[in-house]
Amino acid sequence: MDKLLMLPGPTIVPSEVLLAMAKPTIGHRSKEFGEIFYDTIEKLKKVFITENDTFIVTGSGTATMDMAISNIIKKGDKVLTIITGNFGERFANIVESYKGKAIKLEYEWGDLAKPEDVKEILDKEEDIKAVTIVHNETSTGARNYIDKIGKVVKDYDALYIVDTISSLGGDYVNVDKFHIDICVTGSQKCLAAPPGLAGITVSEKAWEVINKNENEKVGFYLDLKAYKKYLEKKQNPYTPAVNLIYALNKALELVLEEGIENRVKRHERLAKATRAGLEEMGIELFAKEEARSITVTSAKYPNGIDDKLREIMNKKYNIVIAGGQKHLSGKIFRIGHMGICGEKEILATLSCLELALKELGFNIEGSGVEKAKEILSKL
Amino acid sequence: MDKLLMLPGPTIVPSEVLLAMAKPTIGHRSKEFGEIFYDTIEKLKKVFITENDTFIVTGSGTATMDMAISNIIKKGDKVLTIITGNFGERFANIVESYKGKAIKLEYEWGDLAKPEDVKEILDKEEDIKAVTIVHNETSTGARNYIDKIGKVVKDYDALYIVDTISSLGGDYVNVDKFHIDICVTGSQKCLAAPPGLAGITVSEKAWEVINKNENEKVGFYLDLKAYKKYLEKKQNPYTPAVNLIYALNKALELVLEEGIENRVKRHERLAKATRAGLEEMGIELFAKEEARSITVTSAKYPNGIDDKLREIMNKKYNIVIAGGQKHLSGKIFRIGHMGICGEKEILATLSCLELALKELGFNIEGSGVEKAKEILSKL
Repeated sequence: MDKLLMLPGPTIVPSEVLLAMAKPTIGHRSKEFGEIFYDTIEKLKKVFITENDTFIVTGSGTATMDMAISNIIKKGDKVLTIITGNFGERFANIVESYKGKAIKLEYEWGDLAKPEDVKEILDKEEDIKAVTIVHNETSTGARNYIDKIGKVVKDYDALYIVDTISSLGGDYVNVDKFHIDICVTGSQKCLAAPPGLAGITVSEKAWEVINKNENEKVGFYLDLKAYKKYLEKKQNPYTPAVNLIYALNKALELVLEEGIENRVKRHERLAKATRAGLEEMGIELFAKEEARSITVTSAKYPNGIDDKLREIMNKKYNIVIAGGQKHLSGKIFRIGHMGICGEKEILATLSCLELALKELGFNIEGSGVEKAKEILSKL
Repeated sequence: MDKLLMLPGPTIVPSEVLLAMAKPTIGHRSKEFGEIFYDTIEKLKKVFITENDTFIVTGSGTATMDMAISNIIKKGDKVLTIITGNFGERFANIVESYKGKAIKLEYEWGDLAKPEDVKEILDKEEDIKAVTIVHNETSTGARNYIDKIGKVVKDYDALYIVDTISSLGGDYVNVDKFHIDICVTGSQKCLAAPPGLAGITVSEKAWEVINKNENEKVGFYLDLKAYKKYLEKKQNPYTPAVNLIYALNKALELVLEEGIENRVKRHERLAKATRAGLEEMGIELFAKEEARSITVTSAKYPNGIDDKLREIMNKKYNIVIAGGQKHLSGKIFRIGHMGICGEKEILATLSCLELALKELGFNIEGSGVEKAKEILSKL
């Protein structure tokens, strides 16, 4: 039986996207492919809500996080890395891998960043080249307010780099309005395409920095300048994942058909139902209330319950949920409700979770699925 | 109507590979995916014929060419880059993008490298960190004898880096026997999987260099050490292209079922028929006789004929062949006979080529398709 993916990525890929992907491969330098490729980028720009240059890279979201840093910094450059979880840390690791200096603004996992803290560091520290932030931390189920942080960063020279890998197409992202200089995303989260493609947008302000950086070691495969040069002829510099482009094009078509506003509302609605359902059962949510993500819900394992819960969910009920990362391993579980997830998936997940918890001897307080239904019928 | 891809990549992907790819996406950290992922790597090792560490990277072949260089060199390091075409040049460009010094051993396009020339430079120049070579130059339809060059390089400290992107699974490659330290390939050529995945093998000798290089800027997404660390748990460090892994697994299964020896023989046979057919028509082959590739045939446009030929082939006959790259643009055309290509594809291509040439007013000397049939019936 097919597994129901309730992960914070990869998410359920609609059959029509899978079938679009299975069309015969064509030449990546053909005019025909050029049209599809360019159209996919145009659609992605609409989802990013940007006029900035936008590129699709064959690779994971991390490939574009790498590009966002490697194309702008040289040895010793300072980058303010806002850290609210595992992926915020990844930006700091990337900065350090390129011998940059990561100035870490760290918060407890599950919390969110405060604009005033960002302002304080930008006022105090000179020559900060960029500020990085992760919109939605799948590792903690918490989200940052990238609009508010953007309002702060725009008044400084620093570039504003935002990871919307697990939020674009599910939570509200507006690259131009939020003053984002480099925005990165992945195909396999809220966009509901298969993994293997990543997106990146580049503002004029970012290009100025990139072009000045040309004497530095920026590598080859991830060199943004090559992508810009080839996009002029509607091509990719290196052979792109042709069939994944078919899939992403179809997935973006579905996003735009639903409409971004509607899609964000759907994610909000499902998040509220999931949270209320879990709390009704007597399960404590992990992320701070003001920080809670609308694409993934994190919750603490109750006393005596551990990853065995996930095993039962997977083996017996064919529903895949995620565990905790790093120090949260064995302490929390995470339910992704992103992409094409709907009521039936959430209600099935909460129902089976109740069965699995009961099997493990947990005394469920109230019916989570009834509570979720109540919320869904009202919203 | 579906196009018949007679390109030097991407090549025709068998339906069963396309359909394997369309299976539902699963979590990349699941045990289930781990088994498929690891099995795909094991199969790829059998095709590379190596005991060396082998990795699959989500990206184009260029991503692994980049890794082969960026993980081993630091600023100023010397790399002997053997250049017999466009992709040999690419290695030199990658070396220079990382501020290394590319010592270029250049040959006329269409020619092949001579082992004695390599030896001469290795004897003369000190501290050469690596030698790069492209096994099969799709840009020229010429191939190098990587076994003979390998016999030379093995007696020096330099690492032997070989690009088998358009030869692995079609021409004879034996990583261990040829003393190859780093060997790279792509999914969309002779392996007949869709584009988007690349392979790389790393010898013990190469790891010694990579591990010593750890204080240098090697980047993040393309850092080989991360791939090694995660492979121990049958995983990829970053979300891999799950569905492309399904496809590559199936494609490699088909390669191993046919058997590598049989597959190489099939490529040789088709190459001979293609060449003889073209020559019979009165068309001059481009690559030097001793250098001719068995996976792609390059030929000079006869007087008065240009890329219009490719246009007729594509628009009227739905057969896609390639033109020339860089200075050969408009001067040559290229027919890929790699991957799952067989007799019917070659004979259809030669037949339609005769119709198209006739339409363009070219006076065909003898029947190319009859000549090809004659060759095929004898071999």
